[in-house]
Amino acid sequence: MSTQIHTLSNGFRIVTEHMPGLASASIGIWVNTGARHETADQNGIAHFLEHMAFKGTERRTALQIAETIEDVGGYINAYTSREVTAYYARVLGADVPLALDVIADILLNPVFDENEIEIERGVILQEIGQSLDTPDDVIFDWLQERAFPAQPLGRPILGPSERVSSFQRPDFQSFVRQHYGPDQMILSAAGMVDHDELARLAENLFGHLTPTPRSPVELGRFAGGDVRQIKSLEQAHFAIAFESPGYQADDIYTAQIYAAALGGGMSSRLFQEIRESRGLCYSIFAQTGAYADTGMITIYAGTSGEQVPELANLTIDEMKRAASDLSPAEIARARAQMKAGLLMGLESPSNRAERLARLLQIWGRIPALEETVERIDSVTTGDVREFAAHLAAHAPAALALYGPVDSAPSFDQLQERRAA
Amino acid sequence: MSTQIHTLSNGFRIVTEHMPGLASASIGIWVNTGARHETADQNGIAHFLEHMAFKGTERRTALQIAETIEDVGGYINAYTSREVTAYYARVLGADVPLALDVIADILLNPVFDENEIEIERGVILQEIGQSLDTPDDVIFDWLQERAFPAQPLGRPILGPSERVSSFQRPDFQSFVRQHYGPDQMILSAAGMVDHDELARLAENLFGHLTPTPRSPVELGRFAGGDVRQIKSLEQAHFAIAFESPGYQADDIYTAQIYAAALGGGMSSRLFQEIRESRGLCYSIFAQTGAYADTGMITIYAGTSGEQVPELANLTIDEMKRAASDLSPAEIARARAQMKAGLLMGLESPSNRAERLARLLQIWGRIPALEETVERIDSVTTGDVREFAAHLAAHAPAALALYGPVDSAPSFDQLQERRAA
Repeated sequence: MSTQIHTLSNGFRIVTEHMPGLASASIGIWVNTGARHETADQNGIAHFLEHMAFKGTERRTALQIAETIEDVGGYINAYTSREVTAYYARVLGADVPLALDVIADILLNPVFDENEIEIERGVILQEIGQSLDTPDDVIFDWLQERAFPAQPLGRPILGPSERVSSFQRPDFQSFVRQHYGPDQMILSAAGMVDHDELARLAENLFGHLTPTPRSPVELGRFAGGDVRQIKSLEQAHFAIAFESPGYQADDIYTAQIYAAALGGGMSSRLFQEIRESRGLCYSIFAQTGAYADTGMITIYAGTSGEQVPELANLTIDEMKRAASDLSPAEIARARAQMKAGLLMGLESPSNRAERLARLLQIWGRIPALEETVERIDSVTTGDVREFAAHLAAHAPAALALYGPVDSAPSFDQLQERRAA
Repeated sequence: MSTQIHTLSNGFRIVTEHMPGLASASIGIWVNTGARHETADQNGIAHFLEHMAFKGTERRTALQIAETIEDVGGYINAYTSREVTAYYARVLGADVPLALDVIADILLNPVFDENEIEIERGVILQEIGQSLDTPDDVIFDWLQERAFPAQPLGRPILGPSERVSSFQRPDFQSFVRQHYGPDQMILSAAGMVDHDELARLAENLFGHLTPTPRSPVELGRFAGGDVRQIKSLEQAHFAIAFESPGYQADDIYTAQIYAAALGGGMSSRLFQEIRESRGLCYSIFAQTGAYADTGMITIYAGTSGEQVPELANLTIDEMKRAASDLSPAEIARARAQMKAGLLMGLESPSNRAERLARLLQIWGRIPALEETVERIDSVTTGDVREFAAHLAAHAPAALALYGPVDSAPSFDQLQERRAA
């Protein structure tokens, strides 16, 4: 491992890792800004802004942005989450400086042409339409809103159509001024990269920017609640979420091990009991999602309308059973999956660049792999059972049901089953 | 590169590539059997069989299969396509022999317990339900059926529910006997692997099997036609497909370069004209799919009901325009994307193992990377324009429309627009 970090005087950070044997590299900028940094009126602007970055800069049209990267066989893309907006490219090693030049250009010099804003509005309204035609996209947005109602963390990333229809040039400019300061940005690259060269290029491209202090985000308060919409679909979609630790919490690995043992793989309890033994579902899983201050453990499954009561009740029962009898062997397996998954993930330059950026953002440093492994190994069976007991009976819950869900138990019935 | 191939006396083949610097490996068996090897009555059995492989062998229960791989932090999975069924795992280097033992076990010794068949039937009916709730899954299955009507190549991989509901133990046993001969299997592994060790293990595991000659598949005849279903969805889903070369055809790279230039990336014509200039879509792309004897170029986009006529007509117009003015710069860019994409793909052990298996299956050898690059480079602008002209005006077409598509042009109208 050869992770190197450099910080410019304005707070802009560069983190790189050279990976021997690779001909290509992944390079990107992770901006510490996402949907939770929006006000209610701004909901959807972080994502819309990410789109507008590709619609033309002072130096390049939208076509030129795409051509510059694709002429050398690379690709460029971006995503917006609740806490992060990332712009990244994958290119051959020799083209890393070119990729950085394009990424810096689209971040720093977007023109926000009014005609282009109108056109891109149409694209995003179609993206929202596509999401509304995808039942598990719909249900995850609802679940997030029920988990964190009337809070920035509970709002949809794409935003509601009405807000997306309203944004104008000054809205983008003001959001950038507020949230795209150099101290909010991390340049991360992995693969065939040269740290000193990137640090020098970053100084030229980003060194002149002034830090923009901003007010802290509104803390997430997992409140919970439920939403149910009956619709004529093939499947009844069921999702339930519970409050879970944030990134920096001591028990984050306890939560991750729990989620892996409960519903993380083919040997997990939910997969074995609900899919393998009963054949109720094709998709069923539990996963953790963490933010700076809080998190969610989510269980999702799709089944038929007639089977949704059995599925919902079994899910609660499996959570309760896990609290009393999760075995050391299951904990050991979950640990092995996390550790090997970490190692195998690091073999991809894209995963590695992303991980470096996120670790630096969260911790202000890159914890050694051994440190992470040690934290995973230090979680005991008792820790996981205690966490499981809290989750099964006490943690606030959010429930979302979509499709032929008429016969599903009520939220109160499921809450009573948890407490029983 | 250090690709090594070994063939057992019964025709079973082993191909490996050691990748220095990796701690993990991808290993799998690619069986030259998929949905197109089914009779109409068998439709869905190749995929159902793939599921049954994980439901218990003479030595391991379903839980033990999952635990054996997940105990060492790996994962195991499988997929069924129209020509291939693959069973693969990703594990750390030391666990490669263990992974092979599990994969061989589930392929060769599944018990097809009748109770497990009933349970898994429920899982697959849910998988079908999930697919039916996913508009682009639906439309691609329809398009395939219209392209190759009443032919094995046109049938859905999951099969219709009625067939899935009918399969019994003897059906699986007979399909295995017919199609899972050692001469139809390739063991492929990439990453931290040892060729000689794998060849020796494969001899022990597969050397005793007898080859099973089988009748050739029914050749695909792209007939074309259209299907349209009006449904209350957010988006109007539009997909059109044209006959395109098979794997071994001389002009396969011409087709791939054409698809890349027309709709392969952000700089492609469809993306630029229909998304970037007009904002009609979020998703729009062209892609090639190739089989042994034929192939398809498919264009897909999702838009609103009001915009679907404009989208459909523009797609045809862009195809016609490409026939006359695709530029050398666009061809060069498509070539660069294909070549860099190839190189970057090879940096992942999973992609590499899959590529080795498919190349060996198609060509009976592993063409050197330079050979592929040379073939890509030898395609001229004239070749691509000629191909584009044939596609725009003459190639048989299949059309699928789903959602609020009342106002979409008819198939005949689009055919006239092509010919005009």
